[in-house]
Amino acid sequence: MSDLLTPTLLPAIEAELQRQVARLDAPRTRPYYEMLTYHMGWTGEGAGPEATGKRIRPLLVLLCGAAASPTGEWQSALPAAAAVELLHNFSLIHDDIQDNSDKRRGRPTVWMKWGIAQAINAGDGLFVMSNLAITDLIAAHPAESVVRAAQILHNTSLELTRGQYLDMSYQQRQDLGVEDYWPMIGGKTAALLAGCCQIGALLGGADEAAQEAYRSFGNYLGLAFQVQDDILGIWGDEAVTGKSAASDLLEGKKSLPVLAGLAKKGKFAQRWAQGPVKLDEVREIATLLASENGYAAAHEAAKQMTDMALNNLREADPQGEAGQTLHELAARLLGRTM
Amino acid sequence: MSDLLTPTLLPAIEAELQRQVARLDAPRTRPYYEMLTYHMGWTGEGAGPEATGKRIRPLLVLLCGAAASPTGEWQSALPAAAAVELLHNFSLIHDDIQDNSDKRRGRPTVWMKWGIAQAINAGDGLFVMSNLAITDLIAAHPAESVVRAAQILHNTSLELTRGQYLDMSYQQRQDLGVEDYWPMIGGKTAALLAGCCQIGALLGGADEAAQEAYRSFGNYLGLAFQVQDDILGIWGDEAVTGKSAASDLLEGKKSLPVLAGLAKKGKFAQRWAQGPVKLDEVREIATLLASENGYAAAHEAAKQMTDMALNNLREADPQGEAGQTLHELAARLLGRTM
Repeated sequence: MSDLLTPTLLPAIEAELQRQVARLDAPRTRPYYEMLTYHMGWTGEGAGPEATGKRIRPLLVLLCGAAASPTGEWQSALPAAAAVELLHNFSLIHDDIQDNSDKRRGRPTVWMKWGIAQAINAGDGLFVMSNLAITDLIAAHPAESVVRAAQILHNTSLELTRGQYLDMSYQQRQDLGVEDYWPMIGGKTAALLAGCCQIGALLGGADEAAQEAYRSFGNYLGLAFQVQDDILGIWGDEAVTGKSAASDLLEGKKSLPVLAGLAKKGKFAQRWAQGPVKLDEVREIATLLASENGYAAAHEAAKQMTDMALNNLREADPQGEAGQTLHELAARLLGRTM
Repeated sequence: MSDLLTPTLLPAIEAELQRQVARLDAPRTRPYYEMLTYHMGWTGEGAGPEATGKRIRPLLVLLCGAAASPTGEWQSALPAAAAVELLHNFSLIHDDIQDNSDKRRGRPTVWMKWGIAQAINAGDGLFVMSNLAITDLIAAHPAESVVRAAQILHNTSLELTRGQYLDMSYQQRQDLGVEDYWPMIGGKTAALLAGCCQIGALLGGADEAAQEAYRSFGNYLGLAFQVQDDILGIWGDEAVTGKSAASDLLEGKKSLPVLAGLAKKGKFAQRWAQGPVKLDEVREIATLLASENGYAAAHEAAKQMTDMALNNLREADPQGEAGQTLHELAARLLGRTM
């Protein structure tokens, strides 16, 4: 990564996020505020850089904004950068309840610490902060742009909830094909990255065509990233990914490799139909899935999505130092398995 | 109620709500869409006027808007009317999970029908629709007004989540006084009514002072309404309220009469400290609470809040047929116990 922008952008993002969440810092509701600062990685046991996540989404807003702007200015887009990260974190808090997950970034999830009822409300609170953050753009942008940015953000949220519905409904279904995969990750992962890039470009002053190229870049970046994550979740190197290899098989996750393998209707599909994968057979089943098109299909899809992302990024033609950093960030995100 | 506006406004509100929620009406996510139309009272067993609620909040937006406008026009505020009702219904879906409530308006709650995970997402979906609805104002209002309306809406949401936090945290607390009551219902009930009236006035073209009078009217209307609801929840006539009398005592709800009674540190407080009220003693305890300031304190508070609401409404000086209807609606809402 460029040594120039990231050391500047990340602290600025963190400061803006803290400023936004501080709206809730009032004596009577302090414990509520502390649920949010805990989830954001700032307070409580295990607080620190490991607990905050990588802030990829706000970085995309700022880099696309600066790369689309004639001046390279990014500061005025900070409220939008905070808005997308708050939206992402709202969805994580609710996700963790819905998936019954006890850990997030190595720490107990909000619902594990404060119960489901308070965790629902904590997620709602971050969602509200996201809404308020986007209206803060009014300090430095024309009202028309603020409304447009809000529309993009809210349409992104709509896609998130649709993807979440699909993800949950798929858990009960045995009839899924590869074609069911894309709308689900399109909503859960790609829509928000697309929204980040589009909002950045809009605020940077890009015209409609360039906004669309940035949006499309974000969309394919999200799709490629998710497919790679699926591959790593089955055949990844534990030392690199930091989570136990083949964990997605143990969890029965209907990822792209699994759906591609099921479509073969071979030995993998037979084994899958017989019930949950056990720890002592996970390596063997991963190898079986690889031999029945699971790896090749996912690898090919990842390659296609990566090419589309890079083509769209070239079309967007990001300028200056931010443009260079955006290319580097994309290469880093897209190059995880290569 | 006026025969002129309500038969016009209510169908227009319902049509706008349906138009907003229809954003989710896509083949792949149809069951998700159907959770929302069920909750809104339009589909499923028991659908119909009984299941939709009274739509008080959107009526307030439209009536305040028309009464503040030189032309009495209300149609252009319809997206804002939908936004506040969608926000209210989002909060109800999450509330029902948090309170473990199995019925809402006489029908099974969303979480009872589809489980907690899907119900969280259904609530999130209505929240997103509310956000999108408010940006639809851009079709007929200047962008500056749209941003301002969104800010009011989102600040209202923030108060809602704070009130919800307080409500939940109070369940575990034994040290509450009357002074803890107002911030809780201020957030849970009054903030949204205040927001409705302010957004209406803003869109109708009222100046800052008039907007503030409308806002304050809505706030005190909400406080008065809630205190009356507390009184009815203990001493109400079952035939009028439609819920079993004294149900709030059985549920251990820390309503204003209870907090006022506890402050007396008399026989009521002694009995309350001994554990949940049982069905066969509920009449006796209601009488005891009335004899120890519970009824008088709440009645006095309701009277004060009602006076404040009506004073602010006079100051707002709503005009025309909408103004007349607004006075009638306020009288109806405030006169429930009188």
